[in-house]
This record gives sequence, C-alpha cells and structure tokens, in this order.
Amino acid sequence: MPRTRLCSCWGGQVLPLLLAYVCYLLLGATIFQLLEKQAEAQSRDQFQFEKLRFLENYTCLDQQAVEQFVQVIMEAWVKGVNPKGNSTNPSNWDFGSSFFFAGTVVTTIGYGNLAPSTEAGQVFCVFYALVGIPLNVLFLNHLGTGLHAHLTTLERWEDQPRRSQLLQTLGLALFLALGTLLVLIFPPMVFSHVEGWSFSEGFYFAFITLSTIGFGDYVVGTDPSKHYISVYRSLAAIWILLGLAWLALVLPLGPLLLHRCSQLWLLS
Amino acid sequence: MPRTRLCSCWGGQVLPLLLAYVCYLLLGATIFQLLEKQAEAQSRDQFQFEKLRFLENYTCLDQQAVEQFVQVIMEAWVKGVNPKGNSTNPSNWDFGSSFFFAGTVVTTIGYGNLAPSTEAGQVFCVFYALVGIPLNVLFLNHLGTGLHAHLTTLERWEDQPRRSQLLQTLGLALFLALGTLLVLIFPPMVFSHVEGWSFSEGFYFAFITLSTIGFGDYVVGTDPSKHYISVYRSLAAIWILLGLAWLALVLPLGPLLLHRCSQLWLLS
Ligand SMILES: [K+]
Ligand SMILES: [K+]
Repeated sequence: MPRTRLCSCWGGQVLPLLLAYVCYLLLGATIFQLLEKQAEAQSRDQFQFEKLRFLENYTCLDQQAVEQFVQVIMEAWVKGVNPKGNSTNPSNWDFGSSFFFAGTVVTTIGYGNLAPSTEAGQVFCVFYALVGIPLNVLFLNHLGTGLHAHLTTLERWEDQPRRSQLLQTLGLALFLALGTLLVLIFPPMVFSHVEGWSFSEGFYFAFITLSTIGFGDYVVGTDPSKHYISVYRSLAAIWILLGLAWLALVLPLGPLLLHRCSQLWLLS
Repeated sequence: MPRTRLCSCWGGQVLPLLLAYVCYLLLGATIFQLLEKQAEAQSRDQFQFEKLRFLENYTCLDQQAVEQFVQVIMEAWVKGVNPKGNSTNPSNWDFGSSFFFAGTVVTTIGYGNLAPSTEAGQVFCVFYALVGIPLNVLFLNHLGTGLHAHLTTLERWEDQPRRSQLLQTLGLALFLALGTLLVLIFPPMVFSHVEGWSFSEGFYFAFITLSTIGFGDYVVGTDPSKHYISVYRSLAAIWILLGLAWLALVLPLGPLLLHRCSQLWLLS
C-alpha cells in the first residue's frame, strides 16, 4: 500500500516539524516578552511624564488639544510625511528614494518607512512585486549557483595533488573571508559611523536587512537632521544587492568548504 | 577550453539578467515617483496647515515648543510606544503580541510596528532569526512538496482513462479554487470589515503580508481605538502561516495543472 505509506510517512515528518515550529514560536514569544516588556513600560512612563510636563508648561493647552495634535502628527507620519523639521526636507519620493523603495519591494525587505499611500500606488506595487520578486530570486540564484558551479566543477579538486588541494582550500577560505569582510563587516561599520549608531546597532541593521526581515526601525539615509552626500542612498541600495548576492553565493559554498576541510583533516 | 566556455556562458546569462534587473528597478522608481510624489506634497501641505492652525489656536505655544513636542512624540513612537490615547492601552509586548512578533521574524515579514528596542532584545532577535528562518523554510517547503508529491505521483495520472483524468483535473482545480477562496479571498474581506479598511486595502495588506514584504503600513490588530476579541491577533498569525503554507503548496501545483489542462486540450 504505497499510498498509505507515503501518507503516514509525510504525516510522520510534518507533525514533529509542526510541533518544533510552534514550540519555537512560543519560546520566542516568551523571551521577547521578558526582554522588551520592562523597557516598553519605562518608555511609556517617560512619554506620559513628558506629555504632562508639556501640559504644565503651556497652560493654554488642555488634554484634548494635545491628543488632537498627537492625532495630526500620527496621521502625517502614516502618510509618509516626516513631522520633524520644516517643509524644506527633501521629498521621500525623489528619484533616489523611489529607486531605494523599488529595491526594498523586489527583495521583499520592505522597510515600510516608505510605502505607497495612494490607491494607484498600492495597486501598482502589487503588480510590480508580482514580476519583481521572481526576477530578483532568479537573478540572485543565478549569480550564486553560476559562481558555485564555476568554483566546484572546473577545478577537478579530487584528482589534484594534496599540496594543490590545500592551497585551493586555503584560497577559497581566504576569498570567502575577504568577501565577507568587504560586504558584511566593513559597510555596517561605515553606516554606524555615518548614522551615529553603535556598532551593535549597525550590525543589527545589516542583519535585519540582509535576512530580508526589514523592520524599518533602522534605515540608512532617513535621518532628516543629517546631510547625506547625494549618492548615499544609491550606495546603500547597491550594498544591499551586493550583500544579498554575496549571501546567495556564500550560503551554498559553506557545506562545500566544510566537506573539503573534513577531507583534508581525515587524509592528514 | 571548458573553463572559458562556462565563464563566458555564465557571464552571457548573468549580464542580460543584471541589465533587466536594473532596468526594472529604474522603471519602478520612475512610476512610484509619478504616483506618490503629488500625494506626498499634498499630505505635507496639509500637515503644515494643521500645525499652523494649532499654533494660532493656542497662542501660548511657539514654533520651538511645537517642534519639541513633535520630537517627544516621534521618540516615543520609535521606541514602540503608541502616543495616541492613554497609558491603559494594552502592552505591545503581551504574550499574544510577542507570539505575533516571533511569527513576523521567522517568516521574514518583519512589519516593524513592533521591533526590539533593547540591545539584549536585538541580539536575541538576530540569533532567533538565524535558527527560525531556516526552520520556517524547511517547514513550508516540506508541507508544499509533500502534498505535491502525494497529489502527483500516487494518482498515476497518465495511465488512467480519459474520463477519470478529466474528473481528477476538475477535482484538483476545484480544490485549488476552494482553498484559495478560503485562505486568500475570505480572510482579507474579514480583516477589511474588522479594521474598517476598503476591500482593496484589505487585499493590499494580504498581498504585502504573504509576499513577506511586510511594510507595516497596514497591520491587523494594531488600532488602539478598536476593541478586538482576545484571540484576534493569534487568529491573524494562524492565517499568515496557513496562507504561506497554502502558497508553498499551490505555487508548485500551478505548472502541473497547466500541463494537464494543455494535455486534455490537445487530446480532445
Ligand atoms: K520583509
Ligand atoms: K518588512
């Protein structure tokens, strides 16, 4: 009875996986709550205190007026207007920012600090993503697997003398280390410096970006109080593409390198 | 010379793809700019007008005080405090919300309306995602390919009589249509109704969620002026997992159905 066998086998693999998945989510929920709840309560108290101080300092204001103003500010924020500063802020939808936005759509990073607010923009965004996401996957996969095939099949590693194997493995490891330094370590340090973030915040930003989670809590080139050079956002967009391509290349190479190192280890 | 042949072949495929990719981004940048820039300018003018009216109505306020208050509100917002309403708002980090957040991390949706603000939370988030994202991919892939294999290999479609082929294809099409209705059409309509969104906004939310872009401009269960039933957010999280699993199942089935329909068409 191949039908029932496959069924029960599939069920037998899916159910433990489902259980592991749900447990992992529950574990995450518990720990995130432990870590964040107190900080949130402090931020809340701080904000209530600031609001009360504002009401005390400016006696013409009442509670209702302040709430109304908060409402106005939040509505502006939701519609993509930065309420800080004056109206001479650069537009969020100039060409560089639109390009950056298009990049966050096709890579599915979707920071959300910029999002279409008009119905036409939203409809276009859906169809743009429908074509753009597969195109992005195709491009990154092609880049990764192409270079991977080039590195693995052409060298005929198994047939070569021991000394050459060692040199090639060292070369590959150096190539990976140097690339990782240039793509994953150096740029976050530059971003931290330019944006005034701590190094850990810079690496958090890089991880959240290149994992395509893209919370949007840290986004380069969005601080209205800073004057960025004009190509800064475009450079950031190019870094994102380079980083994703690098990960598409490196992630399949990892097992290969481990395999080779273990073989060299066993032979020695 | 196999080395140069593979090299030029790989380069010959990657370069047009790179060109198509960059052109697609430039096209997107142009159209998003056209669609959004005017609406943004209007929102800006509207906000400046509201700010001026506020300054006129409350004469004890000066420009500086208002800017300072905006600063306070934006800082609270960035730290995850909703400035609207009072401090009796439910916490953003209660268990249901933390569970929802953990789900947005492992699926890489990352709405960002909730994000860790403490350094410990950020560090944990990185390691949580490092394990959780592969687990999520494994789970969804397994669900999709398992059911796909079950539907395709066991039926021995090619060997069966014509009438049975027709019935099975109809059955598969009906199964896909019904599932899509239940997972992709019906829930967005319910969300639109509960959240007070238009239908097009509901579908935009569903698309942005299930494509894992997750801008966070529309998120269910986050309006502080609404009273949701207690399991609403958990139901939404389950819908997201169901929807992603459904897409992982349906996307590989599409080509199969097309193939079968074309075969039935050619035979008739
Ligand atoms: K995302
Ligand atoms: K996101």
